[in-house]
Amino acid sequence: MHPKKEGDDFMERRKFVKAAGVAGVAAAATAASSFPSPAIAQGKKKWIGVNTFGKTGALGKAMDAFADFVGKASDGKLTIKVYHGGELVKPFESFDAVQSGTAQIGWGAPYYWTGKSHAIQFVATMPFGLNAQEQNGWFYNAGGIEASNKIYNELGLQFLPCGNTGNQMGGWYNKEINSTDDLNGLKFRMPGLGGEILKSFGVNVVLLPGTEVLAALTSGQIDGTEWIGPASDLGKGLYKVAKYYYHPGWHEPATVLDCFISKKEFDALDDGLRAIVESAAAMTNIKLLSFFQAVNNAAMDKLINEHNVQMREYNEDLLKAIGNRASTLLPEIAGKDPMSKELYENIIAYRKTSVNWARLSEGAFIKARDYADL
Amino acid sequence: MHPKKEGDDFMERRKFVKAAGVAGVAAAATAASSFPSPAIAQGKKKWIGVNTFGKTGALGKAMDAFADFVGKASDGKLTIKVYHGGELVKPFESFDAVQSGTAQIGWGAPYYWTGKSHAIQFVATMPFGLNAQEQNGWFYNAGGIEASNKIYNELGLQFLPCGNTGNQMGGWYNKEINSTDDLNGLKFRMPGLGGEILKSFGVNVVLLPGTEVLAALTSGQIDGTEWIGPASDLGKGLYKVAKYYYHPGWHEPATVLDCFISKKEFDALDDGLRAIVESAAAMTNIKLLSFFQAVNNAAMDKLINEHNVQMREYNEDLLKAIGNRASTLLPEIAGKDPMSKELYENIIAYRKTSVNWARLSEGAFIKARDYADL
Repeated sequence: MHPKKEGDDFMERRKFVKAAGVAGVAAAATAASSFPSPAIAQGKKKWIGVNTFGKTGALGKAMDAFADFVGKASDGKLTIKVYHGGELVKPFESFDAVQSGTAQIGWGAPYYWTGKSHAIQFVATMPFGLNAQEQNGWFYNAGGIEASNKIYNELGLQFLPCGNTGNQMGGWYNKEINSTDDLNGLKFRMPGLGGEILKSFGVNVVLLPGTEVLAALTSGQIDGTEWIGPASDLGKGLYKVAKYYYHPGWHEPATVLDCFISKKEFDALDDGLRAIVESAAAMTNIKLLSFFQAVNNAAMDKLINEHNVQMREYNEDLLKAIGNRASTLLPEIAGKDPMSKELYENIIAYRKTSVNWARLSEGAFIKARDYADL
Repeated sequence: MHPKKEGDDFMERRKFVKAAGVAGVAAAATAASSFPSPAIAQGKKKWIGVNTFGKTGALGKAMDAFADFVGKASDGKLTIKVYHGGELVKPFESFDAVQSGTAQIGWGAPYYWTGKSHAIQFVATMPFGLNAQEQNGWFYNAGGIEASNKIYNELGLQFLPCGNTGNQMGGWYNKEINSTDDLNGLKFRMPGLGGEILKSFGVNVVLLPGTEVLAALTSGQIDGTEWIGPASDLGKGLYKVAKYYYHPGWHEPATVLDCFISKKEFDALDDGLRAIVESAAAMTNIKLLSFFQAVNNAAMDKLINEHNVQMREYNEDLLKAIGNRASTLLPEIAGKDPMSKELYENIIAYRKTSVNWARLSEGAFIKARDYADL
């Protein structure tokens, strides 16, 4: 699939929400009668699904495939009619739509719902936190799904991990960033927990909808922006107006996509249908991570070799300063309420056992691989 | 699950086969009448499944869960009776059993079947090749499943990726290895493509069944051995008889586990059952990789902090020498037959676009993460 199109879809929606802050998403004005209704006829369940993402991108296709699989695997006993972002409700009303019963299942990304729960953003990703493989280790083998569901269940929903963007990039600048002094006074676009950390260094953190980022960077309204990764950033054309492309993406090591299901409907499924829905989510999870892996490879190649992008790595001193600051700020932010604190500590406990193994295995291997000319 | 038990199962079987060489696995002596038979009654299919791995370990439980899911999701339209290693046929006769029609589905690891096809080992893993995330990117988004099926289809089988060990460790030694001179004359256990590379440096590559490795290391019959990763190596007790534990595992960056199905039976499935079987494999794939991730974390922690294992990283000059040698030898080995060559070149094309992105994303992130004290 073409990186531009695929990337655009995810980034437009994600960054808009990050910029606008989801806290203010209004409860879906759902006059139930004006919407299609779920139905059970002859033992067949028909669900309405609401996607936060658009129809044409990778995340639209993935959720169509999710529904297609469920219908086929269940031999029609459970079918899902998917409405993509804006088709039935506004994109960011998908969560509300499932909570209110307008839909039975939805897809998005956990940090979109920070207005519903401060804790939920920690399900998505955390600066200096888990990479994608570790996220899945935590979800499937260390109680991460159950820990996340403490939050979702309170909101009347069942959570299943349903995709991952993998590691993101550090951002675009028009000057080199060599020290925290270079950050001071910079107008930079980075929402979320990463933005909180940058603020503490005197960065003027600007929140902008995705559609305005390129223009804002061109006009000098902002000095730089983080975005997602090579495929999305290539599609956005950021290389045309920013000179330096920094890595690593310390602020979003691996962003989780979520499937949220009405808990009442989920609990009412028989064993077979529940197995099918869980399997659909796990399959979508591995296939979307694989998709981002594959398109980022090709896009990075293009950015460097066709568009002569200037690649830069944040230097050690700078990363140490940011890392130190994160070590103080993250527990403070997580400490604001008991649910955030509990989830944060659960993730941190897993992280503590992960860092050594990741450094000695993937970290050392990726470095060693450069020595082979294959 | 306890690392020892879980790890042991995989390593015993894998290493035995690596040591013994699977080339000589005899065709299963299958007097069909003495085996349970598949059955189709009232539109219900009953398959026989043969696992290469034992019942009690992670890979036994994973394949039981595979069968359980298929039965539940299909509402009994397709059920799989799983026979674990040695229960119906000998562990390494599982591939033969499916080829001959004694069973309809089986599980193992592609390099076990090198005696059937020289090319098939390249599906499993390759020195300095793809990591687990890239393997899945290649499988699901770059035609890797189709490319692998060119080999399996010729053998009458359908291949689905069904698990991954993740990155392995470099091995155990009783002296430090600082240069290729230190390799010369060493008696070391490393089967497969990695072993071929070591041989070229004067290593006396020893092949030993898994059960004999600890004794051989104790008696001095071998000077060192590679094994799998922290969880498996901890279980094996290698830290008791070897002093230095090296990384990275350049020889096996991510070892794929395979599900192989009678092509005739697979093609005869209706859309729904095919979707269920494909989904079972994808779900097992992500869950097993997650399992290895989680148990390796904890085991590495234990090896270092409880057993005071001396960790060593192969130095840059040594890795360069091994990498250079691999760059010559791997295309030579792959060039021995057209199928190997085609598959090798397919993987290498994907690898070429992967290395930059991996270095700038996961590689740089894993390094940066050490700067946060979380």
